[in-house]
Amino acid sequence: MERDWDIVEVLRHSRHDWLNKLQLIKGNLDLNRIDRAKAVIDEIVIEAQHETKLSNLHMPLFASLLLKSNWINPSFKLEYEVLLESESIKVDDGIMTSWTTLFFSCLNEAIEPFQENHLSITIEPQSDGIRFFFDFSGIIIKRELIEKFFADRIVDLMVKEFSNSELTLEVFMPIL
Amino acid sequence: MERDWDIVEVLRHSRHDWLNKLQLIKGNLDLNRIDRAKAVIDEIVIEAQHETKLSNLHMPLFASLLLKSNWINPSFKLEYEVLLESESIKVDDGIMTSWTTLFFSCLNEAIEPFQENHLSITIEPQSDGIRFFFDFSGIIIKRELIEKFFADRIVDLMVKEFSNSELTLEVFMPIL
Repeated sequence: MERDWDIVEVLRHSRHDWLNKLQLIKGNLDLNRIDRAKAVIDEIVIEAQHETKLSNLHMPLFASLLLKSNWINPSFKLEYEVLLESESIKVDDGIMTSWTTLFFSCLNEAIEPFQENHLSITIEPQSDGIRFFFDFSGIIIKRELIEKFFADRIVDLMVKEFSNSELTLEVFMPIL
Repeated sequence: MERDWDIVEVLRHSRHDWLNKLQLIKGNLDLNRIDRAKAVIDEIVIEAQHETKLSNLHMPLFASLLLKSNWINPSFKLEYEVLLESESIKVDDGIMTSWTTLFFSCLNEAIEPFQENHLSITIEPQSDGIRFFFDFSGIIIKRELIEKFFADRIVDLMVKEFSNSELTLEVFMPIL
C-alpha cells in the first residue's frame, strides 16, 4: 500500500514536528508569555496522549496511516481524538485502513490545496464495535470525486453533512 | 541483525523521549526558572541538530543503530556529536554498523548495570575518511570481555585509554 518507512526517515519527520512545537514554546517564552507557554505544553501533552491511545488500539495499520498522514497528505491537516479507554475491542484493521487510505487519497484530489483544510477524526467505542467520526472543513472543489467514492462502499458508512466546505460522516466497524 | 521496528513502535519510543524533555521544560517553568527552561530548550535543539546530522551522514544502518540505542541498551546512556558538515564523505556503513553493534553488545555484558554508564561518540571528518571517537565512562566489571572483543579486529581501531571506569578508543573508516 505504501512504501516502507525506515526509522531514520520516521524520526526525521517526527523530529521536525517536535521542533516546531518547541519553537512555539520558545516563542512564547521569549515574549514572556509564560502562561501561554505552559498552556502550549499542556496541549502538546494531550495531543501526545491521543497518539498513545491510537497506538494502543490494536489497529497497527490504521495507526500507522494516521501517524504519518500529515507527512504525506499536504493538502489537509489531520487531527484525531481517541475516546477509547478499553483496548479490548477488536475490529478489522485491514478494511478500515484500506477505506481510510482511499478516502484520504480521494480527499487530496477533491479539495483545493494550500487552503485551510482540516480533517478531524474522532474514534469512539460502542458496545458492538468502534465508531469513526470524520469531520472535514475546507474547500471542496471536486464534489463528484467524493460522491463517486462513496458509491463504492466497503464499510458501513453514513454521510451526515456534505457541502462545498463541510463533510461529516461516520464509519462503523463491527467487533470481530 | 535486529528485528524490524514499525512506525508505531518507533514513534512510541520517540514520543516518550520528547515527553520527558517537555517535562523538564515544564518543571522549570513551574518553578519559575524561565532562563533555565530556555536553556533546556536550547540544549534539546542542539541534540536534535546532531540527530539530523547523523541522519544525513549517508550511513543509514549506523544512524539507525545509534538512534535506537537508548531504547534497547538499558545498561548505558549513549550521546553523540556529529562534527561533519560535509555530507559527501562515503565510508562503509555495513562494516561500521556491524562493529558498533558488537561493541554495544560487548559493553552491555561487560559493565555494571543500573550505574551511571555513559558512552559518547564523536564523529569527525578527516581528509581520507571518518574518525569515530568512543568515550565510555562508568563501571567496567568484565574487562576480559572487552579485551577479547578488541582482539578480533574488523576495523582500524586504536585504544587510547582502558581502565575500570574509563574506555576511550578511536575507529577510523577510510573513504570508499
